[in-house]
Amino acid sequence: MKLTDRRRFSAEPVPAPAVSAQRGELALALPLRHGGEANISLRYELAGPADAPLLVVAGGISAGRHVLSSDAFPEPGWWQVQAGTLDPGVYRILAIDWAGADGGIDLPIDPADQADALVHLLDALGIGRVAAFVGASYGAMVGMHLTARRPDRIGGLLAISASDRAHPFASACRSLQRQALSLGESNGDPDSGVALARALAILTYRTPQEFAERFASDPAIRDGRVRVAAEDYLDAHGARHCRRMGSIAYRRLSESIDLHRFDPAAIKVPLTLVSVDQDALVPSEDIDRLAAAIPGSTLRHIQSRFGHDAFLKEEAAIAAIISDVLAPLEPAR
Amino acid sequence: MKLTDRRRFSAEPVPAPAVSAQRGELALALPLRHGGEANISLRYELAGPADAPLLVVAGGISAGRHVLSSDAFPEPGWWQVQAGTLDPGVYRILAIDWAGADGGIDLPIDPADQADALVHLLDALGIGRVAAFVGASYGAMVGMHLTARRPDRIGGLLAISASDRAHPFASACRSLQRQALSLGESNGDPDSGVALARALAILTYRTPQEFAERFASDPAIRDGRVRVAAEDYLDAHGARHCRRMGSIAYRRLSESIDLHRFDPAAIKVPLTLVSVDQDALVPSEDIDRLAAAIPGSTLRHIQSRFGHDAFLKEEAAIAAIISDVLAPLEPAR
Repeated sequence: MKLTDRRRFSAEPVPAPAVSAQRGELALALPLRHGGEANISLRYELAGPADAPLLVVAGGISAGRHVLSSDAFPEPGWWQVQAGTLDPGVYRILAIDWAGADGGIDLPIDPADQADALVHLLDALGIGRVAAFVGASYGAMVGMHLTARRPDRIGGLLAISASDRAHPFASACRSLQRQALSLGESNGDPDSGVALARALAILTYRTPQEFAERFASDPAIRDGRVRVAAEDYLDAHGARHCRRMGSIAYRRLSESIDLHRFDPAAIKVPLTLVSVDQDALVPSEDIDRLAAAIPGSTLRHIQSRFGHDAFLKEEAAIAAIISDVLAPLEPAR
Repeated sequence: MKLTDRRRFSAEPVPAPAVSAQRGELALALPLRHGGEANISLRYELAGPADAPLLVVAGGISAGRHVLSSDAFPEPGWWQVQAGTLDPGVYRILAIDWAGADGGIDLPIDPADQADALVHLLDALGIGRVAAFVGASYGAMVGMHLTARRPDRIGGLLAISASDRAHPFASACRSLQRQALSLGESNGDPDSGVALARALAILTYRTPQEFAERFASDPAIRDGRVRVAAEDYLDAHGARHCRRMGSIAYRRLSESIDLHRFDPAAIKVPLTLVSVDQDALVPSEDIDRLAAAIPGSTLRHIQSRFGHDAFLKEEAAIAAIISDVLAPLEPAR
């Protein structure tokens, strides 16, 4: 496939090149660090030209293998806003549904287990070299473990909004989200727990500043109870999450974040860390500390009223950083 | 009762004076702003010499009428650490169990309704003049409404960690705590909801800094599930709360905070506001804004790794502020 001149800033409409994409599943018997061996079916999507530099792209625990739309899979992906930068006409993009995301593993899963699964996938797909790993949140944690295991096969790591270990306060928040899951399960209505857990998580992904701007109106009384301005929004997020993740999967992926422990000395590839000053879940001081522990790493700070969700919402700032990291990889036009 | 020289800083043990205290209940038909009329039984405690300046003392939604130990009621009160300052040998101290705290009102209760109940109580007890209202958190909100209603009968207000309205983010947090209550109720196990709601609340009362210091150890796997370092602590708080507050009471008092809306122009008595810079629940900017809207008010900032719980934990800083506010009232020794 020949790369076209994409002329991004042209006023004339330019037909987008057809983007090839394929999906598949890899059956694996994966030894888990904390829970014995699990038989998993690792679902992946691979999009873009076969001869383009390959990126592994990974997001939060609720992100999956469908990063961007393609001709084969036209629905918007979870990082669709970055389609201009993570261009599947220029790069080959590999992504997975997290091991456990289908609820098939009711065991503790370490982020390093996910990295092991990815190594198996790279081998199975015959991918010798990953040009860069682009990860945000949980995906960045997994990226750290993967690059530590296979520094010879990975050109660099961009790790957005993750540090070398979960912050104790964030872990405490997640532990109560998991207790909400348990309440829903013992209720015989697991979705009620998933919805509450997700709504609680949203509070940690966003900022008081955004809520103050969006939800300033007075509470209402509905059916004799007080409903606050943000409640419909939180309920909608909760209900939406029930449609994509079950209680078991949510618990195990939530736990996985808390199991994240990474030795900074294990990083042997060029690393760019991105820290969001307003992130309550992954405090920027923790990322600063990690950057200081890794000589030669690059640290970028951004400001965002969206806190931990900046990687999804701060389109331009994130695009600029991704572009900087990918620039050395871009094939000549 | 004669006041003794308490000689606080003497090395010799000085027998504490006997402190008289009484408890009672006032039956009231209270018209509620958002929910019709409620028949309540307002439980109060009145401690200290009959001729001493009278203070109304009020804390958070889980605080009650027993502020300090006395000979009649020797168990420690909820603000026992302030016994040296809010001295029931020097002041007469009136406090209540919040209307609704017994679960007897399953209707929305406004903080202004609590103030109405207090006015009835003052009348019933024949208390013409309150030297000062000392309130923290929810108690400070109620204090604002009370002083606005009866400025002629209240000498001054010390309002710690409260503003003129609930912050939208804090309201969002509380709304999800109430959803946890609902989950527990529909589970047929209301206490499970109370425990989770309380544990969630604790996260908003404290700070990430404190959690980072106290709960830095790695998670454990217990019964095949991940338990993080803070989880036992949070569970203990949850279980303890079940022993003092039921699901209905918790919902209605939690809602009450979100219903708090106060007109700064209504303040007609000397006011001292205390703001804790690390308070995530009542951001100090909101208290600063309130202070700026009330000419002549005094604003005190304190720093605390305990966030919103500073009023319970920062013994010395809070004592100094209470002393300053009460100094003009102290009877000559």
